[in-house]
Formats: sequence, C-alpha cells, structure tokens
Amino acid sequence: MKPVGPIPEGYSAIDGELAISGRRVSQLVEEAGRTPLFVYSKDLIAQRMAHLRGAMPGRIKVNYAIKANSFAPLLEFISKEVEGLDIASGGELEILQALGIAGERISFAGPGKRDAELEAAIAAGATLNLESENEAARALAIGERLGITPRLAIRVNPDFELKGSGMKMGGGAKPFGIDAERVPKLAKEITDAGCEWRGLHIFTGSQALGADAVIEAQNNILDLADRIAKEAGLKLPKLNMGGGFGIPYFAGDTALDIESVGHSLSKRLENLPESLDGAELFIELGRYLVGEAGVYLTRIIDRKVSHGETYLVTDGGLHHQLAASGNFGTVVRRNYPVAIASHFGSEPTEIANIVGCLCTPLDRLADKAHLPRAEVGDLVAVFCAGAYGASASPSAFLGQGPAKEVLI
Amino acid sequence: MKPVGPIPEGYSAIDGELAISGRRVSQLVEEAGRTPLFVYSKDLIAQRMAHLRGAMPGRIKVNYAIKANSFAPLLEFISKEVEGLDIASGGELEILQALGIAGERISFAGPGKRDAELEAAIAAGATLNLESENEAARALAIGERLGITPRLAIRVNPDFELKGSGMKMGGGAKPFGIDAERVPKLAKEITDAGCEWRGLHIFTGSQALGADAVIEAQNNILDLADRIAKEAGLKLPKLNMGGGFGIPYFAGDTALDIESVGHSLSKRLENLPESLDGAELFIELGRYLVGEAGVYLTRIIDRKVSHGETYLVTDGGLHHQLAASGNFGTVVRRNYPVAIASHFGSEPTEIANIVGCLCTPLDRLADKAHLPRAEVGDLVAVFCAGAYGASASPSAFLGQGPAKEVLI
Repeated sequence: MKPVGPIPEGYSAIDGELAISGRRVSQLVEEAGRTPLFVYSKDLIAQRMAHLRGAMPGRIKVNYAIKANSFAPLLEFISKEVEGLDIASGGELEILQALGIAGERISFAGPGKRDAELEAAIAAGATLNLESENEAARALAIGERLGITPRLAIRVNPDFELKGSGMKMGGGAKPFGIDAERVPKLAKEITDAGCEWRGLHIFTGSQALGADAVIEAQNNILDLADRIAKEAGLKLPKLNMGGGFGIPYFAGDTALDIESVGHSLSKRLENLPESLDGAELFIELGRYLVGEAGVYLTRIIDRKVSHGETYLVTDGGLHHQLAASGNFGTVVRRNYPVAIASHFGSEPTEIANIVGCLCTPLDRLADKAHLPRAEVGDLVAVFCAGAYGASASPSAFLGQGPAKEVLI
Repeated sequence: MKPVGPIPEGYSAIDGELAISGRRVSQLVEEAGRTPLFVYSKDLIAQRMAHLRGAMPGRIKVNYAIKANSFAPLLEFISKEVEGLDIASGGELEILQALGIAGERISFAGPGKRDAELEAAIAAGATLNLESENEAARALAIGERLGITPRLAIRVNPDFELKGSGMKMGGGAKPFGIDAERVPKLAKEITDAGCEWRGLHIFTGSQALGADAVIEAQNNILDLADRIAKEAGLKLPKLNMGGGFGIPYFAGDTALDIESVGHSLSKRLENLPESLDGAELFIELGRYLVGEAGVYLTRIIDRKVSHGETYLVTDGGLHHQLAASGNFGTVVRRNYPVAIASHFGSEPTEIANIVGCLCTPLDRLADKAHLPRAEVGDLVAVFCAGAYGASASPSAFLGQGPAKEVLI
C-alpha cells in the first residue's frame, strides 16, 4: 500500500458522494455533459483569499500568477480578488486583455520575451520585469519606437534560495533575472534613460511548506531590495517579493502556517528602511490561491485484475494531470490526494491502482492506494487540480484533447 | 561539462549551417514564418523504412503507431510506406478517417476505450485489441447493436518483459492487455460469439537498443502466441508482435542492430508452428520510424551570464519538448542531441546551458553543453524531435501555444 496525499479542506460528502461547494459531483458531471472534468470552486478560492488577507499585513498586496490556471471564468473571478496579475507570455497578456483587465495591473516576467511580446506589453501599459541587460535595451528601444514610456522593473536573481522549495529560483546560476550585484547599475541606467521605474521583482522559489523558510526568504528579499536601492540611489516604488507559498500534495505534507508568515512580516514592516518607505509591497501567488480549489473528475471505464493487482482504468489521465502522474518536476512518483468520488468518505476496503486511459505505463493517477471498492461508472477525484493541471498537461497526447473545465 | 546525445545520421552542414534534406534551416524557418518549428524529413523517413525493410524478413509487415507523431502530412506520407496504422483513441481514429485511411488497416489498442470510441472503431471496420474481458463484452454488444461483426484481437499482458526497454509493458501486473493465462478462454468465447477473429497483440516494451533483448522478446512472443493459440484451439490470422525498437537519445547510446534482429527473425520464421502458419506477422513501430527524422528549431532570444554560467535563452522550450527537458518518463535528466544549428559542425568553444522561454526551472534543453559560441538570433536544433515531441508536450502551458510543423 502507498499513502495518498491529504485531501484539502472544504470538501464534504452528500449521500456518500463527494460534494464541491455543496453540489454532488455526479450532478456536476451531468451538467457538464462529460468527463474528464475540472471543477473549480469560487467559494474555496474566496475562502483562501480571506484566510490570506486575514493573516497578512494590510499593506501587502497580492498578485495572481495566471500561469497556475488561466481558465477565463476563474481569471475573471480572481481578478476581482487580487490587486495585480502576473503573466509569463504574450499569450497570457492576450487572455487578460480579452477579459478587459487594465495593463497597469499586469506585470510580465519570463526569461525569453520576444520583441513582439515586449511591444504588446509596453503598448498595454504592463510592467516588464526585465530578465537581462539585453532585454532592458530592447524594451527601451521598443518604447522609444512606440513613443510610450515603458514601465520597467528588474527581476533579481538573488544570491539566496527559498529553503525546502519544490522549485528553486535563486541561489546560484539561474536563467531568471539578473545577478543581484549587477542590478544597481542597470537600475540607474534605465531610470536615466527615462523609463517609468517600477522597482524590483525577487522570486526565490515555489511550493515551500515551511513557514520558517518563507520568513527567512522574505527577510532576505527585503534586505536585498534595500541594498540594491541604496547602491542605485533610488527609492523603490514597488517590490514584488515573489511567492513560494506551497500546498500539501503528498502524505506527510502539512499546510503552510501563513499566520506565522504574516506575523513575522508585520513585525518586519514596522521597521522598513527608507528605500522601501513608500513602496507597494506585493506577494505573487498562483498555486496557493487556486490549487486546492480544483478537483479533476474522471470516470472508471474498466476494472481489471492483473497478476493479483486491481486496476481502475479511467477516461482521464496524464494528458490532463501530468504532475499528478509523477511526470513533471518530480523524481520519485508519489500519490496526489485521490479518492473514489462516488463513495467519498467510505471506509477503504481494497488496494487498487488508478490509471489513465493512455497507452503508456507513465499514465498513473494512484499507485496501490487504499480505497473503497469502486466499479465501472464510478467517479474518481484527483484533488489539488486547480493549479498546473489543465494548462500544464499535454492535452493533445494520443489524440485525446482537453478536458472540460467549469467554475462553480 | 555534460555530453549531448549523438546527432542522428542524415544531417549535414551547408556553409556552416544545419541542413535537413539538403535545405538550410534558416531558409526553412524563413519559409515557415516563425520559430519554434518542427521539421520532419520525408527523405529520412523513407531511408529508415528502406533500411528496415532490407533488414526484416519479407513476411514481416509494419504498423505505424500514430501516437508517435500524428501531424497530418506526415501521416499521409507514412501511411503509404506501411501496411497498417495503430491508434490509441477515438481522436486518433478521426485523424486517420479525415485522411481517408481505410478502417481495415487500422488497429486500436488502449486500456480505457469509451463506448463511443468502440462504436466508432467497429463502425469503421478497425480491429480492436481488447484489453479486458469487460471490454470484449462491450465490443460484442456494440457490434450486435450496430449489426456489424466486430474485428477483435486480444492484447496479451505477457509474463516476460523486453529487457533494457525504456518503458516496460509486460512482465508482471500491468493495466495493459489480459494476463496471458486468461487469453485462451476469452479467445474461444469471442470467436464462439461470432466476432471476426484477428488474433493477438503482444507488446512488451518500447525504446530498447539491445538487439539481443529484442530478439529474445520476439522469440518469447512467438512462443507465447503459439501456446495461446494451441490452448484456445484456434489459428492466428494475425499477430502484432509489438515494437520496442529504440533510437539513441543520449551520450553512449548506440543504434539498434536491426540486421541482427532481422536475421534472427528470419531463422525463426523458417520453423513457425502450425498455429502461426498463415498468420500475418506485424511489428508495430512509432518512434523508430519517425523519431530521428524530426528536428525542433528554436531561436536564441537572449544570451546571458549568471554566476559565471552562460545561458542561451530560446523562444522554445518544454511546452514543445517535454521529454527533451527531462520531464517525461526520465528519472535523471540527460541531454538530448542538441546543436547550434546556425554553426553546425563548428568546433565547440564554450560551455553553455540552453533553456526555454518558460518561467520555470524545469525548462531546460541542454545542460552545460560544449558548443560553438552562439549569439542572439542564432538557431538551436534539438534532434530526435520527430516522435513524442509536438504531440506529447503541454503546448498551452504559460499561454505559449503549439509550434509550427512542416514536412519537407
């Protein structure tokens, strides 16, 4: 037997069936017309935002990193809950523009921005988080050509990391941002060149569950921002402190203690250096805001036994759930939180493997999980599906196509 | 420094630039209008087919597994080179039907076939490789409802594996096929029920480079097919022996010696048992036919240095090259064959990392590779991009969208 991850809070059973925002999954699937189906809950996103706002100092603003989930109805909903939106491509800019979101709320980070993407972002009035000196020169030239003053921030490659983070984005050689010691010079150059100076973006990593590590990283970020500002002789109108707030995916993971993070940050903000006096302070979150608010529902098509092991074969799979299958940024596959949605909360009675419909041994949703007995036609739920699910999976693989998504 | 994989045969330099089928990549990109670009070579596919046909006994027929690459022009081309086509979903069936490919040339394997997919395949006259007793019953019922005799083969979960294969699909509990010892009973049942009996499908694994392992697996497959046929009291009209022929991706890999495989198979065919007398014998290949005939071209957008390491940031990435990034079925990331296409064949002069444009540390195309110096605007080539590239990557990730594909 292998454990499954912890099922996020906020889910309940109605008549022995999983319910999301008080609605039974069988009904949600019937309304959607098919499986596989991603269901995202407005209630759960709003609850998460309220919890976050309650824990963080009032001065801290929140950016949503739309790469986590850019389903249009979800974006429309969450854009009203956050101060800003972070994008990572021209394609993501177009998604936000189609929703009528003002460019001044948008900031754009990404190590390989094409000229056409820089141009679209400058024209839209978005802030560019510059990733290199070359990019700075290109942005200034494009701004001049367009007759628009570009809004420029600098993304810093910090010389420290977010400890325990699933993905490190600082502390050594990195393709992201500009090494900290070169930032003051560039900051002076671009402000001298007449850009609208928007400060710094310091992103140290993602998916950390340890409050101490997040607190340490935030303190380091504030120190570094101050050092850079002082050396450049500039005040910081804005500081994006990055994110890093993780969610529990695997057995043994526990939720990040954001009260501790917020408490520490509050104390720190009481004594901010002069360079950060008037700075707007942002944290940038994606997964943390929406990850646990989404569930992937897939139907069991076959129940079979091979060499004594039970397989529940579903109509979903890694083409929608690449990370849950263990093929995205993980070395050793572990089970996500998974349940038989049609028998939610029932006592487990058997060990079964849940696999997808793809003709590849990579397509696994749960290995040797202890589950209530499930039959053909029952629904399986994969939790933590609100972030990096639909958008980060190869939906065209084996001719399958994307899953349906709904926001309820 | 980390080595890159071996560049496949058939590529040359013209004026110091990579050429594919005698055409310079800069010209191919100009005609396509943009990067990233997948280029697939008809010449190289045809050469591979000719080599294969020369090595294999004349009796062996070839199926192309379209999951490897289902780009329509490529499918149209290769469908004329092979006897049959293997699909893994109803979506793939639709792709072939749109090209006017006859159902009798198509066979359909996959552990989670929906009723609608079974129905479409039966209506089209495709052969179903049954993956379970349940699926057999569903197929027979659907055939009866449609008034069409279904063409049924059984996919066997063999009790041996393809040694050294990148993905094992036999030898123990598996979600694929039916355990060998249960197959004779089911074969009798479905033939008694009046299906058109199409024999067996025995797939042991994929991506093997050792001829001895492939030979052993083929011998085991022929033995197993005979045992099953004898026990069922049936002759086999058809046997799909699976594939498993690998291609070299990584430093130290050497090409599969298909002459040895063919030689051994020829000897074996001289003494086939009676059950296989009149059987059509197929091998099923995907990656082996098209993998080395494709190149992914991406342009360098930035050249930057961080803590002494050089990064070449491209406009491509894991959204088109998930496997090359090391995030698909690999535990330890190794470099695919990669080159600076704009300086192909030039002496390496520096160590550089090639990364994609995505804002994630997973987006790596080459780590610490020894390369000729490249500048912004130069083209990078990732080889072995003809299979499981475009179709097996999360193209919508970070709002990027698919790469363009061309067949030349």
